[in-house]
This record gives sequence, C-alpha cells and structure tokens, in this order.
Amino acid sequence: MSTTLSRPGVKNWAVSDTYLFGPSKTQKDLALELYQPVEKLGIIAPHGHVNPDLLADPMARFANPTELLVKYDHYLFRLLYSQGIPVEALGVGQTDYDPKTAWHTFCSNFSLFDATPSGVWLRLELTRLFGVTEKPNADNAHAIYDQIDALLQTPEFTPRALFHKFGIDLLATTDPADANLKAHQQAQADGFNMVPTFRPDAVLQVNRPGWQANLEKLQQASGKSIGSYAELLDVLRERRQYFKAHGAKASDHGAASADIQPISDAEKLFDLALQGQLTLEQAQRLEGHALFDQARLSAEEDGLVMQLHLGVTRNHNPHLFGKYGPDMGSDIPHRVNWTAGLAPLMAAFGNHPNFNAILFTLDESAYSRELAPLAGHYASLRLGPPWWFHDSVKGIERYLEQVTETATLHNTAGFNDDTRAFPSIPARHEVWRRTVCNWLAGQVMRDILDLEEAQHLAKLTTRELAVKAYQLEGVF
Amino acid sequence: MSTTLSRPGVKNWAVSDTYLFGPSKTQKDLALELYQPVEKLGIIAPHGHVNPDLLADPMARFANPTELLVKYDHYLFRLLYSQGIPVEALGVGQTDYDPKTAWHTFCSNFSLFDATPSGVWLRLELTRLFGVTEKPNADNAHAIYDQIDALLQTPEFTPRALFHKFGIDLLATTDPADANLKAHQQAQADGFNMVPTFRPDAVLQVNRPGWQANLEKLQQASGKSIGSYAELLDVLRERRQYFKAHGAKASDHGAASADIQPISDAEKLFDLALQGQLTLEQAQRLEGHALFDQARLSAEEDGLVMQLHLGVTRNHNPHLFGKYGPDMGSDIPHRVNWTAGLAPLMAAFGNHPNFNAILFTLDESAYSRELAPLAGHYASLRLGPPWWFHDSVKGIERYLEQVTETATLHNTAGFNDDTRAFPSIPARHEVWRRTVCNWLAGQVMRDILDLEEAQHLAKLTTRELAVKAYQLEGVF
Amino acid sequence: MSTTLSRPGVKNWAVSDTYLFGPSKTQKDLALELYQPVEKLGIIAPHGHVNPDLLADPMARFANPTELLVKYDHYLFRLLYSQGIPVEALGVGQTDYDPKTAWHTFCSNFSLFDATPSGVWLRLELTRLFGVTEKPNADNAHAIYDQIDALLQTPEFTPRALFHKFGIDLLATTDPADANLKAHQQAQADGFNMVPTFRPDAVLQVNRPGWQANLEKLQQASGKSIGSYAELLDVLRERRQYFKAHGAKASDHGAASADIQPISDAEKLFDLALQGQLTLEQAQRLEGHALFDQARLSAEEDGLVMQLHLGVTRNHNPHLFGKYGPDMGSDIPHRVNWTAGLAPLMAAFGNHPNFNAILFTLDESAYSRELAPLAGHYASLRLGPPWWFHDSVKGIERYLEQVTETATLHNTAGFNDDTRAFPSIPARHEVWRRTVCNWLAGQVMRDILDLEEAQHLAKLTTRELAVKAYQLEGVF
Repeated sequence: MSTTLSRPGVKNWAVSDTYLFGPSKTQKDLALELYQPVEKLGIIAPHGHVNPDLLADPMARFANPTELLVKYDHYLFRLLYSQGIPVEALGVGQTDYDPKTAWHTFCSNFSLFDATPSGVWLRLELTRLFGVTEKPNADNAHAIYDQIDALLQTPEFTPRALFHKFGIDLLATTDPADANLKAHQQAQADGFNMVPTFRPDAVLQVNRPGWQANLEKLQQASGKSIGSYAELLDVLRERRQYFKAHGAKASDHGAASADIQPISDAEKLFDLALQGQLTLEQAQRLEGHALFDQARLSAEEDGLVMQLHLGVTRNHNPHLFGKYGPDMGSDIPHRVNWTAGLAPLMAAFGNHPNFNAILFTLDESAYSRELAPLAGHYASLRLGPPWWFHDSVKGIERYLEQVTETATLHNTAGFNDDTRAFPSIPARHEVWRRTVCNWLAGQVMRDILDLEEAQHLAKLTTRELAVKAYQLEGVF
Repeated sequence: MSTTLSRPGVKNWAVSDTYLFGPSKTQKDLALELYQPVEKLGIIAPHGHVNPDLLADPMARFANPTELLVKYDHYLFRLLYSQGIPVEALGVGQTDYDPKTAWHTFCSNFSLFDATPSGVWLRLELTRLFGVTEKPNADNAHAIYDQIDALLQTPEFTPRALFHKFGIDLLATTDPADANLKAHQQAQADGFNMVPTFRPDAVLQVNRPGWQANLEKLQQASGKSIGSYAELLDVLRERRQYFKAHGAKASDHGAASADIQPISDAEKLFDLALQGQLTLEQAQRLEGHALFDQARLSAEEDGLVMQLHLGVTRNHNPHLFGKYGPDMGSDIPHRVNWTAGLAPLMAAFGNHPNFNAILFTLDESAYSRELAPLAGHYASLRLGPPWWFHDSVKGIERYLEQVTETATLHNTAGFNDDTRAFPSIPARHEVWRRTVCNWLAGQVMRDILDLEEAQHLAKLTTRELAVKAYQLEGVF
Repeated sequence: MSTTLSRPGVKNWAVSDTYLFGPSKTQKDLALELYQPVEKLGIIAPHGHVNPDLLADPMARFANPTELLVKYDHYLFRLLYSQGIPVEALGVGQTDYDPKTAWHTFCSNFSLFDATPSGVWLRLELTRLFGVTEKPNADNAHAIYDQIDALLQTPEFTPRALFHKFGIDLLATTDPADANLKAHQQAQADGFNMVPTFRPDAVLQVNRPGWQANLEKLQQASGKSIGSYAELLDVLRERRQYFKAHGAKASDHGAASADIQPISDAEKLFDLALQGQLTLEQAQRLEGHALFDQARLSAEEDGLVMQLHLGVTRNHNPHLFGKYGPDMGSDIPHRVNWTAGLAPLMAAFGNHPNFNAILFTLDESAYSRELAPLAGHYASLRLGPPWWFHDSVKGIERYLEQVTETATLHNTAGFNDDTRAFPSIPARHEVWRRTVCNWLAGQVMRDILDLEEAQHLAKLTTRELAVKAYQLEGVF
C-alpha cells in the first residue's frame, strides 16, 4: 500500500509517538503518559458539518482524492488563494475539471501548510489513513493521488467503514430547519449513531440572499404557510420537535451580533422582510428577537442545547461570493459585545434549569475578558472549544491558558471538530487530545496539578465534557 | 495539630520549595534563588477589602471555617454556582444554616478549583496556616472543619495575631465616603498599621440602587446637607481630608466607563438625579464629571493617589442581585476605551507633579494596546497589578509578558492583593512573588536580564514599587 | 578602543552567540543552527524613517553621542519622561544644551531599559558598533561618551561608511509628498541603494494642524495650484510617478481609522477644509475617501505598494505637543475595526492583480481575530511585522504565535525596522532574526516543523518575504 515509501533515502513522514509534545524531553514523556489512556477512547463528535448522505447510503463512495480532500475544504483553498492560486485551479465551483491536475497544484504548494492546523491534520490523515509516507510535493503528487484513489475504491474506505474504523461513538451533523432527516433515519436504522442538529439560520437571517426561497422550502417541508413571524415560530417549534424525535440534542445559530433580545415590533419587521424592505439594522433586531424565542423554546419546551457561533462577517469577498456563493474562505471575524449582548438572554433564561447554551467565539480577546467570567458564573453557559481558525495547536493552548483559571475546564464543552471533512475527524480529535495532554503535562511540571488531577482532566476533556454539555448522559 | 496527616498512605498536600516554578529544573533552581531573598519581606497591602473591624477589636474572632473561607468569597461560590450548586448551600445570604454542611458541600467539590487561583491560594492557606495535609474532599471535610475550627478559637488565630504572623507592614482597607474610621483609629492606636482608602462610588454612581440612601448617610456623617453637586463636592473634599488625617494614601473608584471629563450641566443632572429622573447616559456623564473633580482634588489639594478600577458590568445576574444584592460573583468585564476616555484627564492633570493615578483593567487586550503605552509615557500614571480574575499564575505571566517591554515594571504599582479574605493575604503575595521570580528566571535563561538585574527587579516588585506608587516613601 | 573594558573585575557586557535564545540548552543550540546561515545576509530595510540627507552628503557626520542616540529617539525619552525626567534634560527641543550632561542623565537611568527592546538594541549597538564593554551608568557615562564621540569623528563612522559596514542592500526612507528627492538621487548616483517612500499624510489629514501650509508646500513642489480635491488628486498622481521614477516601491499612510471608502461629497468637504470649517467626522470621511483614491492609483496606475499604519491617537499629551510638536512619545494606540473598515477597499481592489497592501497594527488582539484571516485570504494583503512597541522579543513571539497558523508567514511582509535611528538598523534586524530562529527552534522541538522546513522559513523571514512584499524581485 505504501507506494510512496518505496524510494530509498526519502525521509519517512509518519509522526512519532510524541508528536506535538514538548518542548523538553521531560514534558514529552509526561504528555505521552497522559495521552496514552485517552488516545483510543471513542470519538464524540457533537458538532460538525459532515454531509449526512455519506452515512445513509451503504454504497456511498468518495469520488477521488481531490473531491475528498481539497475541493470542498475552504481551510485549504483560502490559503492557496491568498498566495495567488485561483480557486478554479483546485476544482472549486467546477463541474468539469481534471482532479489529477488540481491535486498536483495542491501538492506543489503543500509546504504552504507547514505549521498550520491544516498541515497537521493532513499529515495525520495522509500517513495514518492512507499510508502516505512522503510529504506531498510536485514530484510525488501523482503517485500519492493514485495511492489514495485506489484505496477509496475499496470497501474499507467507504464512509460507513471509516465511521467504524475511526471509532466514532456519536456524529452530529448540522441541518437546515427544512431537512427531512431521512439520511439520519437510515443511518440510525443501520446502527450508525448519527444525529441531526437544528440550524434555522437560513430562515432567521431575514436579510440574507435567498431568504424568501428558504422560507418557501420550510413551508413545503412543514406543510404550513408562513405569513407572519408567529407562524414562523410555530413551524420552528414543530421542526425542533421533529429534529428531537430524530435524535437531535442541540440547535446551532450563527449570528453577526450577540444582541439577543425581544422586540415589540417583530411582526411589523417580518412584514417588511416579506416585502424585501428591511434595513440591515431592522434585520439584526428581528434576528435577535428570533434567537431569543429559540432560547425560550429550548428552556421551556424541548431542551435542545443552544449553540451560538457569533461574530463573523460572512462572505467578505464579494467577488468570490458572486461567483461561487458562501463558504469560499472569506468569512472574517469581528468583535462582538458578549457581556451586554447576552444580558437580556441571561436575565430571562440564564438561571433556568432546562436552558443550556454553548458559546463560540473567534475573538480570542473575549476569552478572558467576557466568556470565561460568563461561563464561570451561569450554570446554563458553557464555553465551546476553540473555533475554526483557532482549532489548532497554538489556538488550543491560548484557549487553555486564558480560559481555565477563570472558568475551569468544567465549564467548557470539551471538544468538537466542527468539520465538513469527514476523514479529518480523527486527526482533529487527536490534535486536541495531544495538545491538552501536553498542556496538562506543563501544569504538572510546575506543581499546579498533580499527575492524578491531570489524568482526570485529560479524560474529562476527551469525552466527558462533551457528553455533559450536549446532554448525552443517557447515551454514554 | 495535623489531624489530616494521620492516615497512612495519603499523599502530603504541602507545597514544595519550588511550587509554581519551572517547567525545567534549571528554571526552578534559578527562580528559587531569586525568590529566597524576597520570600520573607514584610507585606505591603495597599489595596484590599478586609473588614477594618477585624483589626479594631482585640477580641475579634473568625466564627468558623465556613464563615471564614467560603460564605463571603465570591471567587469560590461563583464557580460552584456555575456547576449548579445553589449559593444557599454554601451559606450565602443565610442567617440560619449549618456551617458544617456548607463546608462539606464545598469540600466535596474542591477539585473544581484545581489549577485555579482560588485553588492555589486555598492550598497555601490550608497547609501553611492551618496545617491541613490532605486535599479536601467529601470524606475528610468534617475532620478538616474541626481542625480549622479548633484553631480559630485559639489566641494565635485572632485577626490581630495573624496580622503579625503574616508579617503585614501595611494594610489598606476600602471604605465608603461616610465611614467614621473609628476602627482604623483603634487599630492604629494599638500599633496596627491599617489605613483607610477613600471610595466614594456609593455617592458618585447616581443611578445605582440606593443612591439616595447613600447620600443621606453621607449627610449624616458630614453633618451637612447636600442639595447640589457643588455641596456634594464640598463634603467630599472634607471627607478626603478626614481620610487623609486617618492615614489614607489613596482613593479608589470603580466605574463602567473610562470617559472622565467635565460637563457643563452637572448641577442640572444632579437635580434630575435627586428626582430620580436621570437616564443611564446622563448618570454616566455626571459620574465622569465627578471623577474628574476627584482627580482635581487629588492634584491640587490632598495628593491622594487615584485608583481607577474600570470596565465592569456589575450584577449581570439580576436573579441573584435581587435576592442577595451585589458581590454575588456575577460581575462581568466589558471593553472600555482607555485612550480616548482618559485624554481629557491627562490633558488636565497628566503632567501635574502632584497627581498620581493607578489604572486597573480586566480587559487584557488593553495591556499592550493602551495601558502600557499610557503608563510608559505619563509620569502620573502607573498600571496596577493583574486584577481580580487575572490575579493568578497565568494572569500574572500574561501581564508581565505584555506590559513590561513597553511600560517597564517601573511604571507599575507592584502588587496588591485586593482581597476581602484576610487569611488569603500571604498566599496571594506569595503567588505574585513566586510567579514574578519564575518569570524573571526565564528572562535570565535567555540573557535578556542578568542575574543581578533580575534580583533587583524581584525586590522592586515585592515591595518597592508599591511603596512608590502609593506614596509610602516616608513610611517605609 | 575599548576604554570601558580597562577596569578589572567589571563584567563584560558583550552578548553571547546565543543571546535571546532558549530557555533550554537544546533550544539555544537549535536556534543557533538556524541563525548562523541567516546572520550575515544583507539587510533589506523597506520601511523606515532615516533622514535621507545622511546618505546624500559624503561628508555628513553624526554630531555627538547624545544627538545620535538619545535626543531624537522618542522610544527612549518617553520612558525617561514616564519616570519624571523632563525631556529637556535629554536635549529634546533644545538648541543650546550640554550633550554630555544629557548623556549622563541618560546613562544614570540606563537600567530603566532592562528587558525593553530599546535596552536590547542599545546593548547590541553599543557593544558591537562602538566597542562599549560596560553597561552604562552614572560612573562610566563620560568615558562612554568620549569613546563614542571619538569614533564618530573617524571616517569609519560616517553614515555612508556605516551603510556599507551594516551590509544594507536597500534602505527605504519615508518622505512627504512634496519632497524633491535630491538626497536620494545623490545617494543613488554614488552607489547607495536608498529609495524614497511616498507618504502624503500631511496633505490628506485635512484636520491636522498645519494642513494649509503643507498644501502650500505641495503646490510649490508641483508648480500647480490645488483648489479642489480633484486637483489635489492630480498632483498626487504626478508626485507618485515622480517618486516611482526615483526608485520608490511603496506609499505609506497613517490614519486613525480603517474606514476607507469613497464618499460623494468629497469636493464639498475639501472646500470646507480650505475654509477651516471641517468637523472631525468630516475630516475622517474625506481622509478615507482620499486613501481609497490612493489605493486606486496603486492598483490601476503605478503599482506602489500601499502600507497602512492604522489605529493611533497622535499627540495624546497636549502639553508636550504644544511645546515641541509631534513625535514626543505620547502617541497612544486605539482599537480600529479592520474587518468592516477594509471591506469597501477589498471589494474594489482586493482581487486586483496589481494591488498590494501591507497592514500594520498596534492592537495585538486584531492579529488572530481580523488580520491573519484577512491576510490569509486576499492575495493583495500582507501583514506587516510587529510595529513600534511590539518590535521586541516578546512582541515578535506573540506575533508569530498568533499570526502564523492562520495566515502563514508567507502572507507576511517579513521584517522592516521602521526606525529613524540609523545606527540601530542592524540591531533591530538581528533581534528579529534571532527571535524568529528561536521560535522556529521551538517548533522543531515539538515536531511541528522539521529542521529543513525551519531553515527554509528562517531564510524566508530574513529577506525573501520583504523582497516579495515590496515588489523587489527585479532588484534582488
């Protein structure tokens, strides 16, 4: 299988036991001691963007290495784009392109990913999963392509086979409010623990392009007409129950702002939205109102855990958005005011025994200033793991440094991989586990923790916190 | 005395000589070399919230371990609350409760404090002061309670005895404008160097619940009626002199915003305030005006050092505030604009030879962006030590990393413990001294400092900077 | 030459081979291995503030140590000022002063610079360039003065001789729009690769004191009258071409805000500006409009790389500004909104093949939140090196930690020294190279990079990235 190993004198690219540990020998040894007991624990993946159809169909296959690893991964093509490589050269937005040529372009620029999270994940995936033994480059690109491509045709590399191979105990997807969830039903029927997550952004962000069409789809899915905000809320209430009946544990919400509070003119604004006459400010007020109502449904009716992913300017590059739509690698974070923004929500539901929210930020300055103090006070709040750009070795370390003293790990939601790249799931969990264990080792070396305490926290962060945060206690 | 040591095979919880040092052996050794000469230096505690009555009465006693260590420590019960433990279970707000049961609840959850500043302080307090030798848990809770309780009845554990035992050379309390300062007078007469700090927040935050009552108390204390802002200012001028005559070196001010500047309609706003008709915006403008006048009094009349603790949303949890009032662990930081906010104050008094201000922030992103540049320019400004959540091992390290290159340690105010938990004073100073020494050791290892320079800075940070910042040169 | 070495028993102040490396022996060794191949590479200095006249005249001399090293260095006198030393005592703003006395004051307070970037640079300059072997203090101040002063009279210490000695391959200065560039012409004719940078702040910041006078100077330099914004733009277009013809590769722009976008009432605002009737808000809108037009000229006409240094409140101390004008060490950073502010600029030119911009911030919280994501997406954007206060050992390390995972080093502009202190140029580049190499060594120790990858990145950061960012490929 290891085509790329055949050449003599070529450095083996496989990772060592102490990968990412250190810097000192003592810390490497201690980190390894902490890591070994958690290394093989089954994966809980309570938030991510894997396409559920992959697991629904026993015959599903990954088309080829480029489709699998490059074309849909905006972490990758954004960075190549930043260096002047057109996204089209990687197959993005193309129906008719040569995947081998795109793969060659990717491999020729692979050193761009040195010391990036994508570089670390790819190294783990390519070596562990596909037996690649050389770092990709222009020369070995075709050989690596063929090696992976051949494996993808085998029964061991179907999504379902990989689900088992990866040791996934739970996989949550992220699904629009109108999703029929048949894929989840099918996968569950066949023994795959895949659950949906309720994400109604498409119908709550009323100034987003295509909102009317999204609303239409929801009407069709629900069989009900939605002519008012009250009717929309009723339909969403039902859909949440439908999701819950299909195993959903959580809802998920992306918003530009943290200003979540009820308004008195919601119906009027909804009317204006239907007429396409809403200002940006009105749209954000209506969205804040709608999120408040989703929180109410969570607290008072269905108990779905509310995930809030806030503070991103979507589609900052209108050129790429115009050509290929969203998720083109140009979403850029911005500051939000968590302390003031969440105050009304906390006043209403922060002390409610059935309300649970998980907060995600891309503004690391908010970790110690606002989020750790909030999560370190309200029983209903937990802080999600480092999100997106910060799901990286240094990002995880900054998170641990800035969050744990004030909030403690107990008020975090453990880890989730947040990925749409199915084969990267184990790599992402491995980077989290390794980085946490190495950080814990550093605490032990300074007597801040003893070994036993560190071992306990290693286990906690690997699975238990996610189980608790996503209300999976009954399941695991 | 060491009840808890009696069980065989139980790990001794006492800390080693190199506690918090490292990570390497070399760094531990070097840090210890820097620490030893400053370890026993007397404590200067120029800012804190100890109840002055503790030192006034030679017969004062701490009631029991729960009252001493848990019930009033919002650092502790906030974190327990965040994990679903009602504050009532810890005795908070209760007059009739069982302190042993509350203590048991606290000990049963003690591992929640692993690697937190509270955990570090408690470990130092419990082992050093009370001879506890096991980490608290559900099983040993009652034994530890009894052990501490017995000690609290002895003459060696009165507040006054501990004052000497702790080696406190100066203890500043924080006192409302109407305080009669009899406790300080008594303590001083008996040889305890305890001084008050003038904190007029209660009468300057005009939109705060109870403002009218606070004003009334001030009228009674001063024997003057306060019907206008000018009259308030006159009373405060006198009170500042009264505080100064009782040993006060500083004033202290908490405010949500850094916008401190004179306004032209102060009297009109004060009238509205008396009628209870002030908007939030008006209240903040009036407060900014009043703080500006306090600065003027400092610069032009009494020289009290002006401490500014800015950027906190107080009582974020209205549920707890409604039940038990302030200081319930739900104060959440928010961003402020230091650069623009302080510009008028600096234009007026920044170059005044008698004006001295110390700035405290909970927004660590302001350290390198605004505060170090400000303190590194104006002779009248110093940056206070890491405040509140950031008075921790990592918080101190981030502060040193982000502040010292731009401002230098010379423009900081050294350390103050800011605590209301009297027995934690030595622990807090020890953590500061240890963490600074370990950080200095790291600089020596990279040739950024030589050993002699590091030794000098270790001494400076331990006492001398606080002496200088709080104008104690005549005293020490 | 080494007067100061003559005293027995005095510690030699020279730096070791592994200066700034560590903390561990392993890391020191590895960092040195990375550093040695890049240590002697010629200096590319594409952004700075050296006075071009220094290189124009073969007979130019540095007057004396104080004029050379203290009087004009606001990094130094700001910190001395913060400790109560009047700037006048250092010769600032004085025509008649005793440089030896000023030097003595500086040396007497030299330990204030321990562990600051200025302290590191001065140590390298004084030991390497001037053979000083003792750390300055009150006792050796005069001897050091005499030693340096004597050297400054020798032909080896003219600016031109030092240019060669320092191994400078390119030096860019920063010049107002009206500059005649004769100094550059002369220096180039004599074989010194010194190029100008186009900095039109003085005529674009329409609310700045002296704007009318600056406009007048530009009219004289261009021989054209400027009665409208359109005429100003035309003159600037020509001046850019003139700069380009004299070797300029870039423009440079300082602005308080990142809001750069076209407005419809530019001519009306320009009229108001001429009448001195512009509000601050109008002035900022007009400046944003003008910067947008400068970007257009860059993209569509001349290709000058656009440097943006944003987010500083200039002259925060009106007392010093009133007496001595700008650059008195009281410029204080403030927050800007990069994500929203740059959106219009990116929409217009972000995907333009000929547009290149380099972003500089003093708000480190923007590194990971906004700037790394922006530079990691747009091919037209690069992130400049740590600026000003953050051009320091820890500042560089924070930058590398927070930027490289998201943006990669490839989307940075390498290093520039940004200095007006000519003799500090090699020291600043050395600190950058050493700190980067030490950081890369740390990555190797954790298997994040292998040695070969680290060696490649060490070279990249030393010269190649600057060459690419400033479009110097034809030159080097």
